[in-house]
Amino acid sequence: MVKKKTREIKEKKEEHPVPGPGEQEFVEKETKKVDVWKLKRYMCRVKPIGIYAGGKNIIILNRGHAMEHDIYPGYRTEMKTAKQTIIGIVDVSDELVKPDEVGVYTDFAKEYHLKAGEEVEIVHMDRPASIGYIKKKLDKETLVNDEIKTIVQEIMENKLSEVETSAFITATYINGMADSEVIALAHATVASGESLNLGRKPILDKHCIGGVAGNRTTMIVTPIIAAAGLYIPKTSSRSITSAAGTADTMEVLANVTFTMDELRKMVIKTHGAIVWGGGMKLAPVDDKLIRIRHPLSLDPQGMLLASILGKKKSVGAEYVLIDIPIGRGVKIPYYEKGQDLGNHFIRIGKQLGMKVEVLITDGAEPVGNGIGPALECIDVLHVLNGKGPEDLRHKSILMAGKLLELCGKVNKGAGYSAAENLITSGKALKKFMEIIEEQGGNPKVKVDDIPVGKYAHTVKSKVSGSIFHIDNHTISKIARIAGSPKSKGAGVLLHKTRGSRAEIGDSLFTIYAEREDLLDYAIKALEKLEPVEMRKMLLGTME
Amino acid sequence: MVKKKTREIKEKKEEHPVPGPGEQEFVEKETKKVDVWKLKRYMCRVKPIGIYAGGKNIIILNRGHAMEHDIYPGYRTEMKTAKQTIIGIVDVSDELVKPDEVGVYTDFAKEYHLKAGEEVEIVHMDRPASIGYIKKKLDKETLVNDEIKTIVQEIMENKLSEVETSAFITATYINGMADSEVIALAHATVASGESLNLGRKPILDKHCIGGVAGNRTTMIVTPIIAAAGLYIPKTSSRSITSAAGTADTMEVLANVTFTMDELRKMVIKTHGAIVWGGGMKLAPVDDKLIRIRHPLSLDPQGMLLASILGKKKSVGAEYVLIDIPIGRGVKIPYYEKGQDLGNHFIRIGKQLGMKVEVLITDGAEPVGNGIGPALECIDVLHVLNGKGPEDLRHKSILMAGKLLELCGKVNKGAGYSAAENLITSGKALKKFMEIIEEQGGNPKVKVDDIPVGKYAHTVKSKVSGSIFHIDNHTISKIARIAGSPKSKGAGVLLHKTRGSRAEIGDSLFTIYAEREDLLDYAIKALEKLEPVEMRKMLLGTME
Repeated sequence: MVKKKTREIKEKKEEHPVPGPGEQEFVEKETKKVDVWKLKRYMCRVKPIGIYAGGKNIIILNRGHAMEHDIYPGYRTEMKTAKQTIIGIVDVSDELVKPDEVGVYTDFAKEYHLKAGEEVEIVHMDRPASIGYIKKKLDKETLVNDEIKTIVQEIMENKLSEVETSAFITATYINGMADSEVIALAHATVASGESLNLGRKPILDKHCIGGVAGNRTTMIVTPIIAAAGLYIPKTSSRSITSAAGTADTMEVLANVTFTMDELRKMVIKTHGAIVWGGGMKLAPVDDKLIRIRHPLSLDPQGMLLASILGKKKSVGAEYVLIDIPIGRGVKIPYYEKGQDLGNHFIRIGKQLGMKVEVLITDGAEPVGNGIGPALECIDVLHVLNGKGPEDLRHKSILMAGKLLELCGKVNKGAGYSAAENLITSGKALKKFMEIIEEQGGNPKVKVDDIPVGKYAHTVKSKVSGSIFHIDNHTISKIARIAGSPKSKGAGVLLHKTRGSRAEIGDSLFTIYAEREDLLDYAIKALEKLEPVEMRKMLLGTME
Repeated sequence: MVKKKTREIKEKKEEHPVPGPGEQEFVEKETKKVDVWKLKRYMCRVKPIGIYAGGKNIIILNRGHAMEHDIYPGYRTEMKTAKQTIIGIVDVSDELVKPDEVGVYTDFAKEYHLKAGEEVEIVHMDRPASIGYIKKKLDKETLVNDEIKTIVQEIMENKLSEVETSAFITATYINGMADSEVIALAHATVASGESLNLGRKPILDKHCIGGVAGNRTTMIVTPIIAAAGLYIPKTSSRSITSAAGTADTMEVLANVTFTMDELRKMVIKTHGAIVWGGGMKLAPVDDKLIRIRHPLSLDPQGMLLASILGKKKSVGAEYVLIDIPIGRGVKIPYYEKGQDLGNHFIRIGKQLGMKVEVLITDGAEPVGNGIGPALECIDVLHVLNGKGPEDLRHKSILMAGKLLELCGKVNKGAGYSAAENLITSGKALKKFMEIIEEQGGNPKVKVDDIPVGKYAHTVKSKVSGSIFHIDNHTISKIARIAGSPKSKGAGVLLHKTRGSRAEIGDSLFTIYAEREDLLDYAIKALEKLEPVEMRKMLLGTME
């Protein structure tokens, strides 16, 4: 077939024959999958734009100039500086940036130390290798170690978008993860950040699956274990949806943001620390995954296991206690489901070189009286001073005792009393004060030194009856509306526990706030929320 | 248990007893799921910020002020004006916006007609109802009509984030969709936009699953059908990854952006039109889904069916021809898979009130000689003038003939010659010129009036042999690197088709570009890409 040429054309180039098969290549060949888009590139200079986008790597290019380079909003490009290659997601502007500029959001510039006027090169990006692996996982295949490693690396390099990462998480949720995948993900999680090399043994750790308001056992278990002469470099999280995380609560008494090296020095000195895991580069891929899992409350079991055990592995833990609260309103609704999860923890933990023990606990109601950072601190100090709240005291001693047994420090069955002794002897309190001092806090702090919000409102019972249920989620919500955890003194103080009697006019709980308008919001919220459910004995009479 | 009060508190409020159960409510109650975050709200004024974020509804709040209202980057909030409630995704800034301002990106302001200084209220947003439905789909449940409707509505209102929408798409990919779900999604897709009420019958339509370069049959089939006195309001797409979509190609000759009302008037007058579907509010949810499906090339079959048939339904089509190209490098790799998809089209189409016929065609190589808007236009005009390219001519007549039979215009078996007659008689060309004129183009346009890029480079064979394969994907990529489809005159002109012989030095194809640097890129790309594969007869000799 001869084609008609439609016009005179200017033959500008030398002949460039298509590469034909050589003598040795007379078989069908797949088209080479080499990306040539990156031939398109251009230089420009950094212009900081004062916007925070919450950790997304947004860069702003001049619209016309970007289009000439076949770059459009939403595209990912590489931005190359003399020292590093960063992935950016493109927005465009006609006015804010000139053709030779790249606008960079504040959080992005900060993370990568980009300076105004710095010269960078904008380059089209290769298709991330992970996309093929995610498609495999979507198609129910089991990924091998290197594939999971690559996915984690490319998430860390921001090469994968949130849409792609969401597809990966959804696929693991629906299709599940093989043990080998969980272990690969745990290892990749460790490798995504820094590890603690304490050079001391044994190292213990604990973790609670969460969902229980006021459940501040870490701040009691840690000093008990450290007082027993064992090492417990406890890294904790801040609250996402609860009224306070352990890091938020510890922050009332001391600093919690430290580098891995600082943590190491502190733990070598005092045997224990309670720091914010997000403050150091501990398993950072986990933060990125959680940000995407959060909106859909998507908790693929394999990711939960890899996340928790990966973090424990990162601090070198050998003995790990996992607390799985079950009951109404928490993540794990009933015992058998807790058991199943617990078995996974023990099995995967073993393959990662950790001895894991699991406690399945009653998580249907809050533990302790206070909900909110300052109020929870007060509970913790009371317990370490040998007082109540009884539930928090008992649970903390139980956990510390199990850890002492798990690592062989005391004989099976002797853990509880050993842990209790460390409280009654005042040794755990003394150790807690050492830890506070080491983390830059006041080692003489007393309960009355802890400021609680000065605006308060006490809710009283309008019936006579017994407390049927106190809802974790609702109590946390009220505490948050009152300003917790950002406002340290805000929160809820429970005056009654489940099963106790209340007469008309008895105080049920008090809401504290540091600002009057926030207390007003919380009171207004009570119109819609019922954190304490009451029940009367006499349900009716018949004649 | 009596709780110790830790300090004097100022009882600011009147007693506000927790609502106890009334006489009639002595049974266990679920905590009411009412969102109280929206108690937090504030007024501010619109400040336009000159950034385009590619259709994402970004709003920028003053950082300190937003934090005081418990709003952080990435949060979705409602923005209420006097007339509308819009959902925005929050970025924050210390400098760009003051506490009483809300910065609004250009594309967002334009979409919602927001004026500088306009007063709006920022309100915490309820959790979208869809999240629960998406979770159901993740858990392998079948969604009912109203649930799918709500998901589509909330995607349209920007209430769902890309992460959540990605989870939905991934779940439908892995878990599949029941026919009832596909039909619900098709109806919701129609309802997401405007519909064409032509008031005339019969209405015909066609669709190609895509992936074949140069396959511009629509521009030939449409005038044939219209010339036969039937109605064909053809809405087409622009290219995403190919060298040209039908809308890009038609745009060389006429305008393609019209409102639904304009389309109606044109089709009533000329019986046919070839317009850009994205230019009117036709099934707009589909665009949002495709933007998220695209990066992972995620084509859940149910979504494909709902998308295509939903669009046909939106224009009121009663008779629909679906072209499913199969072969190496296109979406559907082999015949049986094409059959399976075809059966779905026919079955679902029937339930949506449309008579569907499916053609399974050879899609392994490009159709026609030109790849790129102007070059494809030239092919189309040649065919309508009674000439080649033979493959494009044959395929177009075949399709038009099937449509004539499908709607009963001609008897079974008489379609091909009827369609061919409309070409040889010049009626189809005359109709095409009417359509061009109606769409604001030049009705006297000739092949030689169509400008092709003045920079050209011809690739010649360096072996003697036959053409074994011409790769759709690679040819499209080269055309895109040369500037297509934005640069209308850029593209690739094939001088040989599969199976034809080429001697050393014979021209295989010519690359055209409108800019010299883009031609350079394309030539450079040839080092890595092999669009035309050759094979020699004699593979070796033995003695």
